This record gives sequence, structure tokens and C-alpha cells, in this order.
Amino acid sequence: MDDDVPLILTLDDSGSSTSAPLDDLDQEELPNENGGSYDVINDASSPAAGDCCAQQSSARHNWEMNYQEAAIYLQEGENNDKFFTHPKNAKALAAYLFAHNHLFYLMELSTALLLLSLSLCEAPAVPMLRLGIFVHATLELFALIVVVFELSMKMRWLGFQTFIRHKRTMVKTCVLFVQFIEAIVVLVRQTSHVRITRALRCIFLVDCRYCGAVRRNLRQIFQSLPPFIDILLLLLFFMVIFAILGFYLFSPNHSDPYFNTLENSLVNLFVLLTTSNFPDVMMPSYARNPWSCVFFIVYLSIELYFIMNLLLAVVFDTFNDIEKRKFKSLLLHKRTAIQHAYRLLITKQRPSGISFKHFEGLLRFYKPRMCARERYLTFKALNQSNTPLVSLKDFYNFYEVVGLKWKAKRNREHWFDDLPRTAFLIFKGINILVKSRVFQYTMYTVVAVNGIWILVETFMLQGGNFFSRNVPWSYIVFLTIYGVELLLKTTGLGPIEYLSSGWNLFDFSVTLFAFLGLMALAFNMEPFYFIVVLRPLQLLRLFKLKKRYRNVLDTMFELFPRMASLGLTLLIFYYCFAIVGMEFFAGVVYPNCCNTSTVADSYRWVNHTVGNKTVVEEGYYYLNNFDNILNSFVTLFELTVVNDWYIIMEGVTSQTTHWSRLYFMIFYIVTMVVMTIIVAFILDAFVFRMNYTRKNQDSEEDNGIVLEKEISKEEVVGIIKLYKRSSAATETAQLQKIVLQMDKYGQMSTLFLGRRSRTKSDLSMKMYEEEIQEWYEEHSRKEDSQTPLQEPASASNSSLKPLSLRQRSQTVI
Amino acid sequence: MDDDVPLILTLDDSGSSTSAPLDDLDQEELPNENGGSYDVINDASSPAAGDCCAQQSSARHNWEMNYQEAAIYLQEGENNDKFFTHPKNAKALAAYLFAHNHLFYLMELSTALLLLSLSLCEAPAVPMLRLGIFVHATLELFALIVVVFELSMKMRWLGFQTFIRHKRTMVKTCVLFVQFIEAIVVLVRQTSHVRITRALRCIFLVDCRYCGAVRRNLRQIFQSLPPFIDILLLLLFFMVIFAILGFYLFSPNHSDPYFNTLENSLVNLFVLLTTSNFPDVMMPSYARNPWSCVFFIVYLSIELYFIMNLLLAVVFDTFNDIEKRKFKSLLLHKRTAIQHAYRLLITKQRPSGISFKHFEGLLRFYKPRMCARERYLTFKALNQSNTPLVSLKDFYNFYEVVGLKWKAKRNREHWFDDLPRTAFLIFKGINILVKSRVFQYTMYTVVAVNGIWILVETFMLQGGNFFSRNVPWSYIVFLTIYGVELLLKTTGLGPIEYLSSGWNLFDFSVTLFAFLGLMALAFNMEPFYFIVVLRPLQLLRLFKLKKRYRNVLDTMFELFPRMASLGLTLLIFYYCFAIVGMEFFAGVVYPNCCNTSTVADSYRWVNHTVGNKTVVEEGYYYLNNFDNILNSFVTLFELTVVNDWYIIMEGVTSQTTHWSRLYFMIFYIVTMVVMTIIVAFILDAFVFRMNYTRKNQDSEEDNGIVLEKEISKEEVVGIIKLYKRSSAATETAQLQKIVLQMDKYGQMSTLFLGRRSRTKSDLSMKMYEEEIQEWYEEHSRKEDSQTPLQEPASASNSSLKPLSLRQRSQTVI
Repeated sequence: MDDDVPLILTLDDSGSSTSAPLDDLDQEELPNENGGSYDVINDASSPAAGDCCAQQSSARHNWEMNYQEAAIYLQEGENNDKFFTHPKNAKALAAYLFAHNHLFYLMELSTALLLLSLSLCEAPAVPMLRLGIFVHATLELFALIVVVFELSMKMRWLGFQTFIRHKRTMVKTCVLFVQFIEAIVVLVRQTSHVRITRALRCIFLVDCRYCGAVRRNLRQIFQSLPPFIDILLLLLFFMVIFAILGFYLFSPNHSDPYFNTLENSLVNLFVLLTTSNFPDVMMPSYARNPWSCVFFIVYLSIELYFIMNLLLAVVFDTFNDIEKRKFKSLLLHKRTAIQHAYRLLITKQRPSGISFKHFEGLLRFYKPRMCARERYLTFKALNQSNTPLVSLKDFYNFYEVVGLKWKAKRNREHWFDDLPRTAFLIFKGINILVKSRVFQYTMYTVVAVNGIWILVETFMLQGGNFFSRNVPWSYIVFLTIYGVELLLKTTGLGPIEYLSSGWNLFDFSVTLFAFLGLMALAFNMEPFYFIVVLRPLQLLRLFKLKKRYRNVLDTMFELFPRMASLGLTLLIFYYCFAIVGMEFFAGVVYPNCCNTSTVADSYRWVNHTVGNKTVVEEGYYYLNNFDNILNSFVTLFELTVVNDWYIIMEGVTSQTTHWSRLYFMIFYIVTMVVMTIIVAFILDAFVFRMNYTRKNQDSEEDNGIVLEKEISKEEVVGIIKLYKRSSAATETAQLQKIVLQMDKYGQMSTLFLGRRSRTKSDLSMKMYEEEIQEWYEEHSRKEDSQTPLQEPASASNSSLKPLSLRQRSQTVI
Repeated sequence: MDDDVPLILTLDDSGSSTSAPLDDLDQEELPNENGGSYDVINDASSPAAGDCCAQQSSARHNWEMNYQEAAIYLQEGENNDKFFTHPKNAKALAAYLFAHNHLFYLMELSTALLLLSLSLCEAPAVPMLRLGIFVHATLELFALIVVVFELSMKMRWLGFQTFIRHKRTMVKTCVLFVQFIEAIVVLVRQTSHVRITRALRCIFLVDCRYCGAVRRNLRQIFQSLPPFIDILLLLLFFMVIFAILGFYLFSPNHSDPYFNTLENSLVNLFVLLTTSNFPDVMMPSYARNPWSCVFFIVYLSIELYFIMNLLLAVVFDTFNDIEKRKFKSLLLHKRTAIQHAYRLLITKQRPSGISFKHFEGLLRFYKPRMCARERYLTFKALNQSNTPLVSLKDFYNFYEVVGLKWKAKRNREHWFDDLPRTAFLIFKGINILVKSRVFQYTMYTVVAVNGIWILVETFMLQGGNFFSRNVPWSYIVFLTIYGVELLLKTTGLGPIEYLSSGWNLFDFSVTLFAFLGLMALAFNMEPFYFIVVLRPLQLLRLFKLKKRYRNVLDTMFELFPRMASLGLTLLIFYYCFAIVGMEFFAGVVYPNCCNTSTVADSYRWVNHTVGNKTVVEEGYYYLNNFDNILNSFVTLFELTVVNDWYIIMEGVTSQTTHWSRLYFMIFYIVTMVVMTIIVAFILDAFVFRMNYTRKNQDSEEDNGIVLEKEISKEEVVGIIKLYKRSSAATETAQLQKIVLQMDKYGQMSTLFLGRRSRTKSDLSMKMYEEEIQEWYEEHSRKEDSQTPLQEPASASNSSLKPLSLRQRSQTVI
């Protein structure tokens, strides 16, 4: 039961300290902070003085509590949760733990998705998925009840006071309330009413733990709004002036339908801003007087080419600024979290650092999946001073180090090193061949020839039944070459090394798909035929050759998660607009609906007979409707692309009122905001990346962050002893294996490599290196001066002033 | 004849040195460098040793030569002319001087414009401006002969060797030669042949001295091309892949005209990239299978929303980099020029600086318009150490200081200070009123009310004869208010101070225009009526209120010259494409021309009778043709705006071959390049400006650069004496006036203010402050090591190494 003796001591002088007296425990290893907030309450109920055994078990209990709370702090730091939502007592802690695991998150997500997908089956439903009102209303009620349950868990964890103060949660509660009432109304009346509030369902998705990136995007969009709106006003101002001018200039021309009223003038200039009606809007006046084109050229130059770009510039500038500030606040938040955790892990006796035992306790809660070896390696990686304790300064690197994946460094260079001599030589030869430039360039040539071949082949086919029953020989030839290449590479490099490169993985999957396509062709499986067209994708390999493309493609992959979250954000806007659109415009547009409007042609569907042939004149635009949510999404995408959006607008307007235009205009402005943000984001990310590579030109591009640590045999044995005492059988077995392996190769130590991919945060760290130090100093100065104000919920825990520390520890004793 | 004694000495101890012996001249005041390159030749013809008088006059001649050459160096530095084009001997100098004045520049420009405007009158001419072939061919020949003359002057100045080496000039010569032959052929055959080479005429404009900004833009465009083309290839690659995929997927659908051949598939995806055919291209396949929209969504997401933005990012990044490098090289070029000039102005005896006399001599050549007072002030402003000589370190600021406009600081605060008491009090009252916040905000309110009034009024009028004969009373009321405001402001602030603010100037002109509009209305002059619509422009005043708008508008004004030059660059591209378009497509498109193509509707012109009404169905697109150069410009602008450009393309294609599409596609790509550059430029300028204001947040926005210098009476008297000796009567008179004024107010000295507006270069200087020092050091290190290689033409002149200086001066003695 001597597990309270720090491990490092055990390793250094195992003889003297393994028999540390049990009754030293409360004096030697009392936690510096008494179990954070939770045990303060426990302590209040049971007096501080008890017998030795009770004290000892309470001390251990205290430690466990401290580990857990420290882990929670670190999680809060990582997820950017504010500390005022930190659980304050044991009851809250239970709720917190219940609400913070992947099972709960998944429940949250699936409920939100269920609610969102209900709109597929409700009133203007997708034909195949239509459900009875009773069925979908019951489903909705069920989902809403689950949300109520989730919210009540959250309330239990946050406490009523904090719950009320948490804006997002309050909005969610209100929306929930409204939805609940409406669902019951629907169930009672057995018919759907105009339920625009369904658009608010997305808030359930946005509030999910997994959608943190979407929340960040939304926040960023709202932060970019003020400057955006400023420039938008300038834009609208010029639009109004030109509308008045255009009205005065062109309304005397009666053949000009675009400027006959001020409203038309305004609407058409708005559409002109999107260029969507461009030469058309000019034509009637241009036909009358050629100089009238000056009006349009000036308007477009000012509005489209100047102010719209200014809009991008302003948003880009704001975005840049916000990104930096966000990075700063996140960094400082993490730092504060680390300080909180640190204070819970140091002991009264040794306030200068954290011992491995306590660090291991922390990791048990923070990363339960981590194995013992990794925990020790993380500890060693953090501990730069090589003392038995991790100081606060070292502990600040926690987030950078804890994400590393550790692996023993291979002694063998190739996978075939252990094979017999002949086999070795063969594989070695293949290895050299595969790695040679000649081989690579030959493959590039083959790919290029293949690409040209496909192009020419496709060009020769002119429509019709080109999927002949017999497989073309060229296909087989090229596929064979690719197959041989794949085989050579896997044998030469070993399957693991081969697949560890993204480009090889890409080659592999494309070849596999092409092979599947061949099978499909051979077996005459019609629906599979389109896989053959995937072949040209292999040409993407050619782009590996140039550095700029590698840079661009790398940036692309780095951007991908952020891009996806931005796409999701856009989809959420789409959802809101789709619901509103469906409520107002469902069933409004149909073939030949708009024969009285100016866009009649686009909605025409005429089936007339010329001679003995049936000619179908189709305008097709009636397909761009709001009849169900999928159609709405497609229509909204078309509106996003902007071209010819006014045809859709005018079609709907001619069937409803002219106020419908507001819907389309607002949608345009909203997508403009989001799109501008996306452009700004891509610009920012790319320019940042380029600046980074320019700054670090000498250091070659490496595959993420790599750290090397050596562990000696004695250390492993020491850890095993420690774990044996706390009877963790699986951990011990694993460690024992390492020792066995070391014995086998006769090594005294093993080298481990910790790897992780480089994140944007790492790049920022390097870019803002100098500024970061300033931020830290400023932060610590600010914290010193106004601690109590900053974190009211955990005021007693914050700050590391030695005085307050001593005061706290005295109250414990 | 003691004019070689430096002025500063005269001022300091006038008694001792005014009588400096004449024969000291050649020993005391020989120029350090013997008249640069020109006099080396002179010296070669006449031996160095002569009698005293000849020596003296030769020394003075030398000085004049030195002044001139120094001025030329400084001009070269300012205009970024390379030093290898520096005139090398007296003959070259004469040609240089002939070719470097505004008269010559104007001739250059007008010849170029004449040549360009010939295309208005040639073959597919603007109807009103059509000229006989004989006339325009003769005009062309005449203009070309002028160009020959210009080029021969340039050859004389550069010398044959340098002339051959100068690429731009060589290209111009070749183009000239071709044009000459063609013009003669036209004149002989009396008929125009296909003259695509006319597109090359723009080179005459580009080569003009006044079009330096255009040349810079073109250079920047060409420098941005490599990364642009890289990304373009990526774009095209995906386009080809999707074209093949689309062909396989959609060609079985026979009602889909967009993907029936691979060529169509490619062309339509190219057009889709511009979104110009968007929902239409999707519709036939979408009508058949709703899931086919995925193809288009994926295509647009990758191509339009990702790679196109990447294109912008890459260009922006390159642009950023180029801007900085350009600024650096310009800065270093100027520095070198200053060094060259400095070396020519110092004397053997005092190599540590330039005296006023020599500085004045330089300015006489560099800025002949400058008056004596300004020259002295410039000298004083440069001379920061207050010694009688300007050191090289001070002289480096030459370009920053020489642009300052000097004005005596007024002692009187207001223009009415000298008026009698009563008048003074009245004007003072008006002044206080006008400057008060209440007055300003009242005016803003009036403007806002006026704006709303106009909007409502216009909204009420619905078409028809709204220009009634009687003037509306609201117009008179508001105009009266504006008139009163204008009057109050001019009297309260004084006309000069009032008009010195851009906003006031704007108010003034708008009010004036509105007044003219009123007159037009009152006198029933129909053609003037549209001036009334200028009134809302006054609302732009409201934007003064917010800081962001002031920033944006300031940036707008700062950007304006650059924007104009970019616009001109675009016009030059337009011109080339217009000529090519006219040669190939003139007269191709006419009403009902394209009835067999898919875009027949847009070109239709049907005049049929329904009942008893004549209904005209007009497609109007036949107006977008290449029938003359003005029409071509409008058509090209429409192509630039991109929307529905494929209708123009298909119309032309249906009448010619399908190779015509190449013309339109290339034009799209070219405008895309220029437009991307414009966007990158606006982004860069704006972000730069924002960063600048963020960096200098504390220092309030000032009106350009201001320098203060005091001149005492003795100094003025000293200068007068100096000028009297060189018998410059006008200068002396002006200076005498200053002395008189000083006497009148009993001052011993006058304070002068030097002002100029802040340029981008000033901002850059401040932004890159730290880096600039590094550049200088690097530059001087490089110069020390490889001078002879760097500037072969003026190798002997370059570098300031004391050793070479001594060597040179020894040869003179």
C-alpha cells in the first residue's frame, strides 16, 4: 500500500523508500488543493480530524478526485469550454461525467439529425419517404423528449444559475418549448400548420458537442458582420442612386420593361449586381441609344468591380484579425486550464512539480485508452529538465505532447531484413528499383500516355452504345502495368510503409477501383460501368512532380476539415431557408405556370406535333421548386451559384406576391456573407501557409511533429513495480513484453518515436513566436491584478500565488 | 566673379570669404568628378593644362555639366530608368534632353493615340467616322513617320549598342517596320486586307513615357503568370476529367444537347466554370434523374469554389511578394541614383557634403520651375545636421523632401482678422457656427431628409411625363438650404480654406450642378433635365460620419491612380481583342442570323401582327457584335462581365467555325488574369492600409507629410546676394519681397511649412522600417563586392569607395 511514494524515488533509490511508513502519508502526500470544489463539500459534512485509516483512504479518495478534476480542467481547456461551467460539486460532477462521453454526444447528435431529417417526411415530403402525420409527430415528440432529458442533465451539471446565464442553452430551451407545443398542436389537430419555426431545428444540431467547428464558424461570421454591413450599406446606397437615375433615364422608353417603375429599377439593379441579367437588362436601352451602355458600365465598375472587392477585402482583413485573436484567446485559455490542473496535482511537500504517480493518475482520467508505456513516455517527453518532477513550465507543453503517438523505433531498416540471404537480395533489388528515379518517371510517362489514350479514345466515340461487351485491350494493358507497379511497391517497401504515404494510398485505391471496373465490364454488370471513368484520376499523380502543386494539395488536405465545417455551416443556412421556402412556395411552380411573367419561356412545357414528329419544348425551370426539402436544397444551390437566379425568383414571384423577392434577396446576401467568408478563409489559409514556407525555407518539409525518447530497462522495471502494486494486470503484461524484447535483442534501452501531424495551431505557434511571449506576460500580469473578477465560479482555484496556496493548505491541515 | 565660394561661408563669415581670390578657383572648387561622361570626351580633345581663364571657364562649364548629369541621374532614379541607358557623351546628352521633356512626351502620346484611334475610321468603321482608305492610310503613314523620328532620337541618345539591347524598343521597332509595310500595301492596293497586326499598335501607347504605370502593371501581370498557369492547369485537368465523366454519364440521354460529344462536354464545362449556363446545363439530366445534380454540385464545388479561389490566393500571394520586391528594388535604385548625383556635386576640397551653391545648381536642372525660396528651403530641410554642407546621409532623403510644397505659415488665423471690429465679430460668429457640431448634424439631417424625400417622390411617379414644367417646391427649398450653407461656410472659413477640403469641394460642385439643374428646369431645357438626379449624390456626405467609411473612401482616392492605370491596361487588352474580333467576326451577327443554333431565341427579331397590334419580339443579342470598334468594346465588356457570354460565343460560332470558341475562351482567361490581379491589388492595398492604421493607431490621421523650417532675415539677404552675382533678376525680386514682408511685421525670421500628400511609398517606408535597414546594408555590401559587373555602362561612376574617388580626382588634376 505504499503507492503514495512517488515513482521517481522508487526508481532512483528503490531500497530506501519502498518501505515508506504508511502513517507518513497524510503529512507527506496530501494534495495541495483539497479535491477542488467537490471535497470541500464532503469535508464540510465530515470534520477534518479522523483516525489514521479514514484519513488515509480519504487522502486517496482526495487524490482520485483531484485527478478527475484536473482532467476535467484540461478537457475544458482543450474544448474551449468556459470555466464558469466547471462542475461545482459532486452531484454536478456526476452529471458532468454523464454528459461528457461519446455515448451521450452520439445521442445528442442522432436526436438532432432525427429532428432535422423529419422534414423529409413532413407535409411537403419527398414522395418516397412520406409518413402519416401521426407517425412523424410522434417521432418528433420522442426526439424532443430526449432533448428535454439532455437539457435536464445539463441543468443538473451547470446548476440553475449558470444554466440561466448560458445564452446558447437558453435559446435552445426556448426553441424546444416552442417546438414541443407545436408538435402537440399538430398531433391534436392531425394536420400541419405553417410551421416556419421548424427552421429553428438546426439549433439542436449546432449545439451538439461534435459541431464545435460549426459554432466557431457561426461566431466568426457574426463577428465579421459589422464591417460587412457597413460596406453593404455603401453598396445599397449606390444602388438606390443608380436606381433613381436609371428610372429617370430609361422609363420614357416604353419598350424597356426593366426600369418602368422605381421598384423594378431597384430589383433589376440588385440582380445586375449579381450580373445575372446582364446584357439583357441593358439591351432595350442600348438598342435605342448606344451611349446608354455608359450607365451600365459605370454601375458595374463601381458596384461589382470596386465595392464588391472592397467587401472581400474588409472581410478578409477582419477575418485575419479574428483568427489571430481567436488563436490568442485559445492559447491563453489552455494555459489557464493547465495552471488549474497543475495546482491540483502538486503536493504540499513538493510544490515544485508533479510526480509520475500523479501524472499517471491524471492521464487515467484524461485519456483512459492510453497504455502505461505511452503514459510514461508522455511524462518523459514533458519533463525536459530531467528532474523527477514535471515543473509548471514543462507542464505548459501538455497539449502539444499528449497527442503524440508513440512507437518503438525499428532497428531493422526494411521489412525483409530477417529473411534468408537470397530472398533478402531479391527484395533489396526490388526496393532499390522502386525507389529509383527511372522507375518513378517511367510510371509518370505510363500514366500520361494512359491519360492521352483515354482522351483520344473518348473523343473517337461519338455518343451511343460505347460500352461494348468486350473489354478494350488498352484497358487491360494499362491495368496490368499498374498492378505490377502496385505489387513491386508493396513487396519492395513492405505493405505498411507503402500504405503510410497518402499518394500511395491514392494509387492503391484507384487501381483497385479500376480493377473493379474491369470485373464489372467482364461480367457485363451495367450499373458498374461508370467506374471506368475513374481511371483518369490516376493522372493526378503527375501533379506530384512540381513543388507548388504539392504545396497546394497539402494545403488542400489541411484545409479539408475546416472546409467541411464551413460547408456544414452553409448547409445549416440552407436548411433554414429550405423550410421557409417550403412553407411559402411549395407547389407554387409547375409547367406552364408563369405564362404571364417575363420569364415564361423558362417554365414552358409544350408538347406539339410538327409534321409527324412530336416536339417537346421544355423550359425545365419548373424543376427548380420548393416542393420538398431535397428539391429545395438543389434550388438553393442554384441560387447560390447565382447565375439566372432571377428566373427562379421571377417565376415564384409571378405566382405569389412581389414580397417573395425579399426571400430571394435575403438569401443572396446571406450566401454572399458565407461565400465571402469561405473565400477569405481559403485566402488566409493559403497565404499563411505560403508565408510559413517562405519563413522556413531551409528546413525541409517534414511529416508532422516527431519527438524521440529513450527508455532504459530499469525504468520499465520500475513502472512495472508501480503498476503491480496498484494491481493493473493488463498494463503490467504489456510492459513485461517490452522488457522481454529488450532482453531478446540484448539492449539496455529502447528508443521510442512520438509522432503527430502538424496542425494549424502548431504553424501559428511558430509564426507568432515572438508575440506569444508578450501575450503570456500580459496575461499573467492581468491575472495577478484581477483574478477574483475573472473567474467567479472557481475563484479560489485560480492563480498560482504562493501565498494563497499556503493559506489553502493550512485549512486542510 | 566669386560665385564659386559656397554660400554658407558667405552667410557665416561674410567678411572674410566674399573676396576669395579668383585664381583659387581651380584649386578650391574643382568638381570631384570631372563632368561625368560628357567632359571626359571633351577633355580628351583639349589637353588638361590651359591658362587660368580658360581653366576657370572650363571649371564653370564643368560644374554646369555636373549639375545636369546629376539631375539626369536623379530623374533616372525617380523614373526607374536603368542606368545603362544613361547618356554617355555630349551628343547623346543633347538627344536625351530633346527626348526628355513634356513636349516630346506629348508628341509620343498623341502619335500613339492617333494610331489607335485610326481603327475608328478604318474598314469596319464607326458609321459616322468612316474615312476613305486613302485618307486613313496617309494619316497612318504620317503617324508612323513621327514614330520613326522618335525612335531615331532615342537611338541617338542610347547609341546603337544599347538600342539593340533594349528589348522594348526593339519590339517597337519591329512592329513599326511591319506596320509601315502594311500601310504602304494598303495605300498601293487601295483596299484593306486582314490586318490583325493592327492589334500590335498598342505597343506605341505602352511605350509612352506617360504610360509607365501601364508598363508596370503589364510587368506585374507577366510576373504573376507562372503560378497562375500552374493552377490553371489544375483547373483544366479537373475539367477534362469531368468532361469525360459527363460524356459517359449523360450522352446516353438523347434529349441532353450539352454532353452529346466530348467537345460539347468540354465547352459546356468550361462555360459552367463561369456559371454562365448553370441551371440550364444541368436541367435535361436533372429532369431524367434527380441524382445527376450531384455531378454538377461536385464539379462546381471543386472548380468554382475551391480552385478558383485558390487561383486568387496564389495570385494574391505572388502579388504581395512582387509589390514588396518592387518597392525594395525601386528604393535601392533611387539610392544608387542619389549616390551617383552626390558624387558629381561634391568638391575635391570638401568631399564631406554638398554646398548650397551646387545644390541650387542641381535644382535648376532638376526642377526648373522651383523658385529660389523653395530651393533654399529644400536645402535646409535636407540639411539635418545644420552644418553648411549636406552630407550623403542627409542627401538620401532627397526624393522625400524635393516634392514638398512650401508656404509661409500664416500669422493670421482667419481670413477676416484684418477687417474692422464689427465685421470681424460677425465673421467670427459665422466661423464658430459653421464649425459647431450642431450645424454639422443639422446639415446631415437635412441631407438625409432630402434623400428620403427624393426616394419617396420618385416612388410616387410611375413612368410617363414626370418632368413637369413647373419646378417642384421641395427642390427649391432644399437647394436654398444648401445655398445658405455654402454661403455661410465660404464666408466663415474663407474661400481658400473652404475649398481645400475634398468634401467641401464635393458639396460645392454638387450644389452647383443642382443649381444648374434648377436653371434647366426653369428654362424648360429638356436635355438638361437629368441633372436633377445628381441630387442624391449629396447623400454621400452622410458617410463622412463613420470612421470606416472615411478609411474606405480615403483608400479609394489613394487607389484611384493605380485603378485607372489598371483600367487602361485592361483597355489595351480590349483593343487587341477588338481588332482581332473585328477582323474575323465583323458583320457575322445580325437579326435572325442564328436560327439553327441553340441560342436562336436571343438573336430573333420577329415583327408579327396579333389581332390589330404589331408585336415585336426582339432578342437584341445581334447588337453584341464586332461591327466596329465601339461595338466590339461593348461586346468585350459584356464578355468580361461573363454572364450569358456563351450566347454571344454560340451566336458567332454558329455563323463561323467552331474554332471561334478559342477566341472567346482565350479572352475569358485573359480577363480572368487581369481581373484577378485587380482583385488582388484592391485586397493588398486595403489590407496594407488597414494594417498601417492598426500599427499607427495612436497617431491621428493627418493630411499628408508636413515639415516646418524657419528662415532668418540674414539668410534671405545672403541668398539675394548670391543670386545678384549670377544676375537672376526675377529670383532676386521675389526674395526681396520676403524681406520687405518681414520688415513690415517686424519679424527676424519667417516660418515655412512644406506639405505634400502621403504616397504608398511613404506608407511602405514606415511599414518595412526595420527591413529597409537590412536591405541597405545588404545592398552596400553587394555593391562593394561586385560593382563593375553590376553597371557596365557607368562602371567608373558607381560606388563611393574613397580609393576610386582619389584616383578619379588625380586624373583631373
